[in-house]
Amino acid sequence: MKIAILGTGTVGVTIGSRLIELGHSVMMGSRTANNEKAQTFVSKHTNNALSGTFEQSAKFGEIIINATKGENSIEALKLVGKNLDNKIIIDVSNPLDFSNGMPPCLIPHLSNTNSLGEEIQKTFPLSKVVKTLNTMWCGLMVNPIMINNGNHINFICGNDLEVKDKVKLLLNEFGWKNENILDLGDITSARATESVLPIWLRVYGATKNGAFNFKIVS
Amino acid sequence: MKIAILGTGTVGVTIGSRLIELGHSVMMGSRTANNEKAQTFVSKHTNNALSGTFEQSAKFGEIIINATKGENSIEALKLVGKNLDNKIIIDVSNPLDFSNGMPPCLIPHLSNTNSLGEEIQKTFPLSKVVKTLNTMWCGLMVNPIMINNGNHINFICGNDLEVKDKVKLLLNEFGWKNENILDLGDITSARATESVLPIWLRVYGATKNGAFNFKIVS
Repeated sequence: MKIAILGTGTVGVTIGSRLIELGHSVMMGSRTANNEKAQTFVSKHTNNALSGTFEQSAKFGEIIINATKGENSIEALKLVGKNLDNKIIIDVSNPLDFSNGMPPCLIPHLSNTNSLGEEIQKTFPLSKVVKTLNTMWCGLMVNPIMINNGNHINFICGNDLEVKDKVKLLLNEFGWKNENILDLGDITSARATESVLPIWLRVYGATKNGAFNFKIVS
Repeated sequence: MKIAILGTGTVGVTIGSRLIELGHSVMMGSRTANNEKAQTFVSKHTNNALSGTFEQSAKFGEIIINATKGENSIEALKLVGKNLDNKIIIDVSNPLDFSNGMPPCLIPHLSNTNSLGEEIQKTFPLSKVVKTLNTMWCGLMVNPIMINNGNHINFICGNDLEVKDKVKLLLNEFGWKNENILDLGDITSARATESVLPIWLRVYGATKNGAFNFKIVS
Protein backbone atom coordinates (compact mmCIF):
# COMPACT_ATOMS: atom_id res chain seq x y z
CA MET A 1 0.00 0.00 0.00
CA LYS A 2 1.12 3.59 -0.56
CA ILE A 3 1.35 5.32 2.79
CA ALA A 4 2.29 8.89 3.58
CA ILE A 5 3.83 9.84 6.88
CA LEU A 6 3.63 13.47 7.86
CA GLY A 7 6.37 14.31 10.33
CA THR A 8 9.99 13.15 10.27
CA GLY A 9 10.62 12.83 14.01
CA THR A 10 11.30 9.57 15.84
CA VAL A 11 7.67 8.49 15.66
CA GLY A 12 7.38 9.06 11.91
CA VAL A 13 10.69 7.37 11.14
CA THR A 14 9.87 4.37 13.37
CA ILE A 15 6.49 3.83 11.72
CA GLY A 16 7.93 4.41 8.25
CA SER A 17 10.74 1.88 8.72
CA ARG A 18 8.32 -0.75 9.94
CA LEU A 19 5.94 -0.16 7.03
CA ILE A 20 8.77 -0.63 4.53
CA GLU A 21 9.84 -3.80 6.36
CA LEU A 22 6.25 -5.00 5.85
CA GLY A 23 6.43 -4.29 2.10
CA HIS A 24 4.60 -0.97 1.88
CA SER A 25 5.72 2.12 -0.06
CA VAL A 26 6.29 5.12 2.18
CA MET A 27 6.65 8.80 1.44
CA MET A 28 7.97 10.85 4.34
CA GLY A 29 6.39 14.26 4.22
CA SER A 30 7.74 17.43 5.71
CA ARG A 31 7.36 21.19 5.36
CA THR A 32 10.18 21.36 2.80
CA ALA A 33 11.05 18.94 0.00
CA ASN A 34 14.68 18.65 1.10
CA ASN A 35 14.16 17.86 4.78
CA GLU A 36 17.36 16.28 6.10
CA LYS A 37 15.70 13.60 8.26
CA ALA A 38 13.46 12.56 5.37
CA GLN A 39 16.45 12.26 3.08
CA THR A 40 18.36 10.19 5.66
CA PHE A 41 15.32 7.93 5.92
CA VAL A 42 15.19 7.48 2.14
CA SER A 43 18.93 6.77 1.95
CA LYS A 44 18.63 4.01 4.57
CA HIS A 45 16.03 2.09 2.58
CA THR A 46 16.97 0.88 -0.90
CA ASN A 47 13.36 0.38 -1.96
CA ASN A 48 9.94 1.85 -1.39
CA ALA A 49 11.10 4.97 0.45
CA LEU A 50 10.42 8.44 -0.88
CA SER A 51 10.33 11.91 0.54
CA GLY A 52 8.40 15.02 -0.38
CA THR A 53 6.46 17.98 0.91
CA PHE A 54 3.38 17.46 3.07
CA GLU A 55 1.31 18.11 -0.06
CA GLN A 56 3.20 15.67 -2.29
CA SER A 57 3.06 13.01 0.42
CA ALA A 58 -0.66 13.39 0.97
CA LYS A 59 -1.29 13.05 -2.78
CA PHE A 60 0.86 9.90 -2.81
CA GLY A 61 -0.65 8.12 0.19
CA GLU A 62 -3.80 6.01 0.21
CA ILE A 63 -3.43 6.30 3.95
CA ILE A 64 -1.90 9.34 5.65
CA ILE A 65 -0.33 9.00 9.06
CA ASN A 66 -0.14 12.18 11.11
CA ALA A 67 3.06 11.99 13.14
CA THR A 68 3.69 15.71 13.37
CA LYS A 69 3.99 17.35 16.77
CA GLY A 70 0.50 17.87 18.15
CA GLU A 71 0.98 21.59 18.55
CA ASN A 72 1.74 21.88 14.80
CA SER A 73 -0.59 19.24 13.38
CA ILE A 74 -3.51 21.40 12.25
CA GLU A 75 -1.21 23.94 10.63
CA ALA A 76 0.79 21.18 8.89
CA LEU A 77 -2.36 19.48 7.62
CA LYS A 78 -3.66 22.79 6.30
CA LEU A 79 -0.65 22.81 3.95
CA VAL A 80 -2.16 19.67 2.42
CA GLY A 81 -5.67 21.03 2.21
CA LYS A 82 -7.97 19.47 -0.39
CA ASN A 83 -5.67 16.49 -0.82
CA LEU A 84 -7.06 15.14 2.44
CA ASP A 85 -10.57 14.76 1.02
CA ASN A 86 -11.71 11.13 1.25
CA LYS A 87 -8.34 10.07 2.59
CA ILE A 88 -7.86 8.01 5.73
CA ILE A 89 -5.81 9.95 8.28
CA ILE A 90 -4.36 7.83 11.06
CA ASP A 91 -3.62 10.31 13.81
CA VAL A 92 -0.98 9.05 16.26
CA SER A 93 -0.04 12.48 17.65
CA ASN A 94 -0.78 14.02 21.01
CA PRO A 95 -1.56 17.64 21.86
CA LEU A 96 1.28 18.07 24.34
CA ASP A 97 2.00 21.50 25.78
CA PHE A 98 5.61 21.96 26.93
CA SER A 99 5.17 25.64 27.80
CA ASN A 100 4.68 24.92 31.52
CA GLY A 101 7.80 22.72 31.86
CA MET A 102 8.10 18.97 32.30
CA PRO A 103 6.20 16.74 32.27
CA PRO A 104 4.08 18.46 29.59
CA CYS A 105 0.38 19.08 30.09
CA LEU A 106 -2.20 18.97 27.31
CA ILE A 107 -2.90 21.95 25.05
CA PRO A 108 -5.97 23.49 26.72
CA HIS A 109 -8.08 24.11 23.61
CA LEU A 110 -7.30 20.59 22.31
CA SER A 111 -8.14 18.66 25.48
CA ASN A 112 -10.88 17.76 27.96
CA THR A 113 -13.89 18.92 25.87
CA ASN A 114 -11.96 18.64 22.60
CA SER A 115 -9.03 16.64 21.23
CA LEU A 116 -6.49 16.82 18.45
CA GLY A 117 -8.17 13.88 16.71
CA GLU A 118 -11.56 15.53 16.56
CA GLU A 119 -10.07 18.94 15.71
CA ILE A 120 -8.49 17.33 12.63
CA GLN A 121 -11.82 15.73 11.74
CA LYS A 122 -13.66 19.05 12.19
CA THR A 123 -11.07 20.99 10.17
CA PHE A 124 -11.10 18.44 7.32
CA PRO A 125 -14.66 17.12 7.37
CA LEU A 126 -14.22 15.11 4.13
CA SER A 127 -11.27 13.17 5.52
CA LYS A 128 -11.71 10.03 7.62
CA VAL A 129 -9.78 10.40 10.83
CA VAL A 130 -8.87 7.39 12.95
CA LYS A 131 -7.10 7.94 16.25
CA THR A 132 -5.00 5.01 17.38
CA LEU A 133 -1.56 4.01 18.73
CA ASN A 134 -1.06 7.37 20.47
CA THR A 135 -1.03 5.91 23.99
CA MET A 136 2.38 4.26 23.92
CA TRP A 137 6.05 4.51 22.94
CA CYS A 138 6.49 4.33 19.16
CA GLY A 139 8.58 1.14 19.36
CA LEU A 140 5.52 -0.67 20.73
CA MET A 141 3.11 0.95 18.27
CA VAL A 142 4.63 -0.99 15.39
CA ASN A 143 5.92 -4.00 17.30
CA PRO A 144 3.57 -4.83 20.18
CA ILE A 145 4.94 -8.36 20.46
CA MET A 146 8.03 -6.82 22.05
CA ILE A 147 6.36 -7.06 25.49
CA ASN A 148 3.98 -9.48 27.20
CA ASN A 149 3.52 -11.57 24.06
CA GLY A 150 1.73 -8.62 22.47
CA ASN A 151 -1.03 -8.71 25.07
CA HIS A 152 -1.68 -5.09 26.01
CA ILE A 153 -4.18 -2.52 24.87
CA ASN A 154 -4.43 -0.29 21.83
CA PHE A 155 -7.46 1.98 21.47
CA ILE A 156 -9.09 2.98 18.20
CA CYS A 157 -11.54 5.85 17.66
CA GLY A 158 -13.20 7.20 14.54
CA ASN A 159 -16.55 7.97 12.97
CA ASP A 160 -16.50 5.34 10.21
CA LEU A 161 -16.63 1.63 11.07
CA GLU A 162 -15.40 0.45 7.66
CA VAL A 163 -12.44 2.79 7.81
CA LYS A 164 -11.60 1.55 11.31
CA ASP A 165 -11.71 -2.01 9.97
CA LYS A 166 -9.18 -1.06 7.26
CA VAL A 167 -6.91 0.51 9.84
CA LYS A 168 -7.22 -2.60 12.02
CA LEU A 169 -5.80 -4.66 9.14
CA LEU A 170 -2.72 -2.45 9.18
CA LEU A 171 -2.54 -2.78 12.97
CA ASN A 172 -2.73 -6.56 12.54
CA GLU A 173 0.30 -6.35 10.24
CA PHE A 174 2.20 -4.55 13.01
CA GLY A 175 1.34 -7.46 15.32
CA TRP A 176 -1.79 -6.22 17.05
CA LYS A 177 -4.34 -8.96 17.70
CA ASN A 178 -7.97 -7.86 17.33
CA GLU A 179 -8.67 -8.88 20.93
CA ASN A 180 -6.20 -6.17 22.02
CA ILE A 181 -7.68 -3.41 19.87
CA LEU A 182 -10.53 -1.74 21.72
CA ASP A 183 -12.91 0.39 19.67
CA LEU A 184 -14.02 3.27 21.90
CA GLY A 185 -16.47 4.71 19.41
CA ASP A 186 -16.47 7.92 17.44
CA ILE A 187 -13.64 10.43 17.15
CA THR A 188 -14.70 12.27 20.32
CA SER A 189 -13.23 9.28 22.19
CA ALA A 190 -9.83 10.71 21.23
CA ARG A 191 -10.38 13.01 24.23
CA ALA A 192 -9.91 9.96 26.38
CA THR A 193 -6.98 8.34 24.58
CA GLU A 194 -5.08 11.63 24.43
CA SER A 195 -5.76 11.98 28.18
CA VAL A 196 -3.67 8.84 28.70
CA LEU A 197 -0.55 10.90 28.09
CA PRO A 198 -0.34 12.51 31.54
CA ILE A 199 -0.41 9.10 33.28
CA TRP A 200 1.89 7.57 30.66
CA LEU A 201 4.45 10.31 31.29
CA ARG A 202 4.26 9.94 35.08
CA VAL A 203 4.61 6.16 34.93
CA TYR A 204 7.60 6.62 32.64
CA GLY A 205 9.04 9.14 35.10
CA ALA A 206 8.56 6.77 38.04
CA THR A 207 9.81 3.59 36.35
CA LYS A 208 12.38 5.06 33.89
CA ASN A 209 11.11 2.57 31.33
CA GLY A 210 9.17 3.66 28.26
CA ALA A 211 8.72 0.16 26.87
CA PHE A 212 5.56 -0.46 28.87
CA ASN A 213 1.90 -0.39 28.12
CA PHE A 214 -1.40 -0.78 29.88
CA LYS A 215 -3.42 -3.97 29.73
CA ILE A 216 -7.06 -4.17 30.74
CA VAL A 217 -7.82 -6.91 33.25
CA SER A 218 -11.26 -7.88 34.49
CA MET B 1 -7.84 2.72 63.69
CA LYS B 2 -10.36 5.58 63.80
CA ILE B 3 -11.20 6.59 60.27
CA ALA B 4 -13.52 9.35 59.03
CA ILE B 5 -15.19 9.14 55.69
CA LEU B 6 -16.48 12.37 54.23
CA GLY B 7 -19.26 11.64 51.76
CA THR B 8 -22.07 9.14 52.06
CA GLY B 9 -22.40 8.08 48.43
CA THR B 10 -21.63 4.63 47.05
CA VAL B 11 -17.88 5.16 47.27
CA GLY B 12 -17.97 6.29 50.89
CA VAL B 13 -20.31 3.51 51.98
CA THR B 14 -18.26 0.85 50.14
CA ILE B 15 -15.01 1.97 51.75
CA GLY B 16 -16.66 2.35 55.15
CA SER B 17 -18.18 -1.14 55.11
CA ARG B 18 -14.85 -2.70 54.16
CA LEU B 19 -13.01 -0.79 56.91
CA ILE B 20 -15.47 -2.06 59.51
CA GLU B 21 -15.07 -5.59 58.18
CA LEU B 22 -11.33 -5.13 58.73
CA GLY B 23 -11.90 -4.06 62.36
CA HIS B 24 -11.60 -0.29 62.10
CA SER B 25 -13.95 2.29 63.63
CA VAL B 26 -15.62 4.46 61.05
CA MET B 27 -17.50 7.73 61.32
CA MET B 28 -19.45 8.66 58.20
CA GLY B 29 -19.41 12.42 57.82
CA SER B 30 -21.90 14.52 55.96
CA ARG B 31 -23.11 18.08 55.78
CA THR B 32 -25.81 17.44 58.37
CA ALA B 33 -25.70 15.28 61.51
CA ASN B 34 -28.87 13.39 60.56
CA ASN B 35 -27.95 12.38 57.00
CA GLU B 36 -30.17 9.48 55.98
CA LYS B 37 -27.52 7.48 54.15
CA ALA B 38 -25.12 7.81 57.07
CA GLN B 39 -27.82 6.62 59.48
CA THR B 40 -28.61 3.64 57.24
CA PHE B 41 -24.90 2.81 57.21
CA VAL B 42 -24.73 2.94 61.00
CA SER B 43 -27.83 0.81 61.38
CA LYS B 44 -26.34 -1.91 59.16
CA HIS B 45 -23.26 -2.31 61.31
CA THR B 46 -23.73 -3.29 64.93
CA ASN B 47 -20.25 -2.16 65.95
CA ASN B 48 -17.72 0.49 65.10
CA ALA B 49 -20.00 2.58 62.92
CA LEU B 50 -20.84 6.16 63.74
CA SER B 51 -22.15 9.16 61.88
CA GLY B 52 -21.69 12.88 62.31
CA THR B 53 -21.10 16.18 60.60
CA PHE B 54 -18.03 16.69 58.45
CA GLU B 55 -16.48 18.54 61.39
CA GLN B 56 -17.26 15.85 63.98
CA SER B 57 -15.96 13.15 61.65
CA ALA B 58 -12.70 14.94 60.94
CA LYS B 59 -12.12 15.39 64.68
CA PHE B 60 -12.78 11.67 65.20
CA GLY B 61 -10.59 10.29 62.42
CA GLU B 62 -6.87 9.68 62.59
CA ILE B 63 -7.20 9.31 58.86
CA ILE B 64 -9.80 11.19 56.82
CA ILE B 65 -10.99 9.80 53.53
CA ASN B 66 -12.41 12.30 51.07
CA ALA B 67 -15.20 10.56 49.17
CA THR B 68 -17.29 13.64 48.48
CA LYS B 69 -18.13 14.53 44.89
CA GLY B 70 -15.12 16.24 43.35
CA GLU B 71 -17.08 19.36 42.50
CA ASN B 72 -18.01 19.80 46.18
CA SER B 73 -14.84 18.56 47.88
CA ILE B 74 -13.08 21.86 48.62
CA GLU B 75 -16.28 23.42 49.98
CA ALA B 76 -17.01 20.34 52.10
CA LEU B 77 -13.50 20.25 53.51
CA LYS B 78 -13.71 23.95 54.36
CA LEU B 79 -16.52 23.05 56.75
CA VAL B 80 -13.91 21.03 58.65
CA GLY B 81 -11.24 23.72 58.55
CA LYS B 82 -8.61 23.61 61.29
CA ASN B 83 -9.49 20.03 62.18
CA LEU B 84 -7.56 18.95 59.08
CA ASP B 85 -4.25 20.26 60.44
CA ASN B 86 -1.71 17.42 60.65
CA LYS B 87 -4.32 14.89 59.56
CA ILE B 88 -3.81 12.42 56.74
CA ILE B 89 -6.40 13.00 54.02
CA ILE B 90 -6.78 10.12 51.58
CA ASP B 91 -8.41 11.69 48.55
CA VAL B 92 -10.22 9.16 46.36
CA SER B 93 -12.44 11.69 44.56
CA ASN B 94 -12.31 12.92 40.99
CA PRO B 95 -13.08 16.40 39.66
CA LEU B 96 -15.76 15.29 37.22
CA ASP B 97 -17.79 17.90 35.35
CA PHE B 98 -21.22 16.68 34.26
CA SER B 99 -22.32 20.06 32.90
CA ASN B 100 -21.47 19.11 29.29
CA GLY B 101 -23.39 15.82 29.35
CA MET B 102 -22.13 12.24 29.42
CA PRO B 103 -19.48 11.04 29.68
CA PRO B 104 -18.33 13.80 32.02
CA CYS B 105 -15.18 15.81 31.35
CA LEU B 106 -12.87 17.13 34.06
CA ILE B 107 -13.52 20.41 35.89
CA PRO B 108 -11.32 22.85 33.94
CA HIS B 109 -9.73 24.68 36.89
CA LEU B 110 -9.03 21.36 38.65
CA SER B 111 -7.38 19.52 35.76
CA ASN B 112 -4.43 19.52 33.34
CA THR B 113 -2.23 22.07 35.16
CA ASN B 114 -3.97 21.47 38.49
CA SER B 115 -5.85 18.64 40.21
CA LEU B 116 -8.32 18.12 43.01
CA GLY B 117 -5.62 16.39 45.06
CA GLU B 118 -3.23 19.31 44.91
CA GLU B 119 -6.02 21.87 45.33
CA ILE B 120 -6.89 20.19 48.64
CA GLN B 121 -3.21 20.21 49.65
CA LYS B 122 -2.88 23.91 48.71
CA THR B 123 -6.10 24.86 50.52
CA PHE B 124 -5.12 22.95 53.68
CA PRO B 125 -1.33 23.22 53.72
CA LEU B 126 -0.98 21.66 57.19
CA SER B 127 -2.84 18.50 56.17
CA LYS B 128 -1.08 15.57 54.50
CA VAL B 129 -2.91 14.69 51.31
CA VAL B 130 -2.45 11.32 49.65
CA LYS B 131 -4.17 10.65 46.34
CA THR B 132 -4.85 7.00 45.67
CA LEU B 133 -7.55 4.52 44.56
CA ASN B 134 -9.34 7.11 42.39
CA THR B 135 -8.66 5.32 39.10
CA MET B 136 -11.10 2.44 39.48
CA TRP B 137 -14.57 1.29 40.54
CA CYS B 138 -15.00 1.44 44.31
CA GLY B 139 -15.58 -2.32 44.60
CA LEU B 140 -12.03 -2.88 43.39
CA MET B 141 -10.57 -0.11 45.54
CA VAL B 142 -11.24 -2.10 48.69
CA ASN B 143 -11.10 -5.60 47.26
CA PRO B 144 -8.55 -5.75 44.44
CA ILE B 145 -8.32 -9.55 44.66
CA MET B 146 -11.75 -9.64 42.97
CA ILE B 147 -10.04 -9.61 39.54
CA ASN B 148 -6.82 -11.05 38.09
CA ASN B 149 -5.63 -12.34 41.49
CA GLY B 150 -5.24 -8.71 42.61
CA ASN B 151 -2.63 -8.01 39.96
CA HIS B 152 -3.49 -4.61 38.54
CA ILE B 153 -2.30 -1.11 39.26
CA ASN B 154 -3.07 1.40 41.96
CA PHE B 155 -1.26 4.73 41.94
CA ILE B 156 -0.27 6.73 44.99
CA CYS B 157 0.77 10.40 45.08
CA GLY B 158 1.64 12.72 47.95
CA ASN B 159 4.34 15.01 49.29
CA ASP B 160 5.29 12.97 52.39
CA LEU B 161 6.96 9.57 52.02
CA GLU B 162 6.23 8.45 55.61
CA VAL B 163 2.56 9.31 55.22
CA LYS B 164 2.39 7.39 51.93
CA ASP B 165 3.93 4.41 53.76
CA LYS B 166 1.16 4.60 56.37
CA VAL B 167 -1.49 4.73 53.67
CA LYS B 168 0.13 1.78 51.91
CA LEU B 169 -0.39 -0.30 55.08
CA LEU B 170 -4.11 0.41 54.83
CA LEU B 171 -4.04 -0.45 51.11
CA ASN B 172 -2.32 -3.72 52.04
CA GLU B 173 -5.24 -4.48 54.38
CA PHE B 174 -7.62 -4.00 51.44
CA GLY B 175 -5.57 -6.58 49.54
CA TRP B 176 -3.17 -4.40 47.55
CA LYS B 177 0.30 -5.91 47.21
CA ASN B 178 3.13 -3.38 47.32
CA GLU B 179 4.29 -4.47 43.87
CA ASN B 180 0.95 -3.21 42.51
CA ILE B 181 1.09 0.18 44.23
CA LEU B 182 3.07 2.61 42.10
CA ASP B 183 4.31 5.78 43.78
CA LEU B 184 4.20 8.52 41.15
CA GLY B 185 5.76 11.17 43.36
CA ASP B 186 4.40 14.34 44.91
CA ILE B 187 0.79 15.47 44.93
CA THR B 188 1.08 17.15 41.51
CA SER B 189 1.02 13.60 40.11
CA ALA B 190 -2.68 13.62 40.96
CA ARG B 191 -3.07 15.53 37.68
CA ALA B 192 -2.16 12.29 35.95
CA THR B 193 -4.23 9.88 38.03
CA GLU B 194 -7.32 12.08 37.79
CA SER B 195 -6.73 12.18 34.01
CA VAL B 196 -7.33 8.42 33.97
CA LEU B 197 -11.04 9.07 34.39
CA PRO B 198 -11.78 9.98 30.76
CA ILE B 199 -10.26 6.73 29.48
CA TRP B 200 -11.81 4.75 32.35
CA LEU B 201 -15.25 6.08 31.44
CA ARG B 202 -14.83 5.32 27.71
CA VAL B 203 -13.59 1.78 28.37
CA TYR B 204 -16.57 1.28 30.69
CA GLY B 205 -18.84 2.64 27.95
CA ALA B 206 -17.36 0.30 25.34
CA THR B 207 -17.23 -2.86 27.46
CA LYS B 208 -20.26 -2.26 29.78
CA ASN B 209 -18.15 -3.66 32.62
CA GLY B 210 -16.93 -1.47 35.47
CA ALA B 211 -15.11 -4.27 37.29
CA PHE B 212 -11.92 -3.78 35.29
CA ASN B 213 -8.64 -2.12 35.93
CA PHE B 214 -5.40 -1.34 34.14
CA LYS B 215 -2.25 -3.39 34.66
CA ILE B 216 1.16 -2.19 33.57
CA VAL B 217 3.05 -4.69 31.42
CA SER B 218 6.63 -4.32 30.21
